[in-house]
Amino acid sequence: MAEPFVLDPRLAADCALVGDLPLCRLLLMDDASYPWCILVPRRAGVRELHELAATDRASLLDEVVRLSGAMQRLFAADKMNVAALGNVVPQLHVHVIARRRGDTAWPRPVWGAAPAVPYAAGARADLLARLREALAPLA
Amino acid sequence: MAEPFVLDPRLAADCALVGDLPLCRLLLMDDASYPWCILVPRRAGVRELHELAATDRASLLDEVVRLSGAMQRLFAADKMNVAALGNVVPQLHVHVIARRRGDTAWPRPVWGAAPAVPYAAGARADLLARLREALAPLA
Repeated sequence: MAEPFVLDPRLAADCALVGDLPLCRLLLMDDASYPWCILVPRRAGVRELHELAATDRASLLDEVVRLSGAMQRLFAADKMNVAALGNVVPQLHVHVIARRRGDTAWPRPVWGAAPAVPYAAGARADLLARLREALAPLA
Repeated sequence: MAEPFVLDPRLAADCALVGDLPLCRLLLMDDASYPWCILVPRRAGVRELHELAATDRASLLDEVVRLSGAMQRLFAADKMNVAALGNVVPQLHVHVIARRRGDTAWPRPVWGAAPAVPYAAGARADLLARLREALAPLA
């Protein structure tokens, strides 16, 4: 039997669940400073992009591209940031962040720039609903 | 006629040329703190991953994955960092960085962590030769 996928507990603690796309679990980082999503391929034991099977890599790219396009439209982003880092949480995950000129970290990357500002519950629920609606054609 | 590809002058100033892969120009960031390459699709006017044509996206992913695997082996990296940010240089480019526990920025991302440390000329020439040899099957 294949090892089951289990979401890294630090990602689970820092994020809200948007839903599952064909390959990835889609999360919303609980930081109201930026619209910031994370895609986590539901594959156990994978740390690097180059460790994914070729078909999974193609699915991941497809989900990244659709999410990035949807977020740029939803949030009128000036620039999308897409990154697989994993120095702290090695489970493969891809950040997709909508950046706006003048946001908290602009033009620097968001990691470590400022403490996370948790969403108010209502604002988070709204945002989750907008993301689910925008990505429904994918799920 | 299609608009010709011209490398952004800031990328040209900060990097040495490794060579051209089928889609991308491959650069080496002139910072001896980390083995740090940059892939730039040779397509004019593209800022976002989701703006690339689907065939170009597949080529870019293929080049990212092969470069990432080759760099992890060459430099015995603990983690690869792969990122398309572009807040400062909007021309689409993908960073592929070999990270090691204990490197200058570890575990933080490299951007803005410390001033670049230029390579000695001999060390840079050596590294360019090793990268060209490792990637020759791709070119």
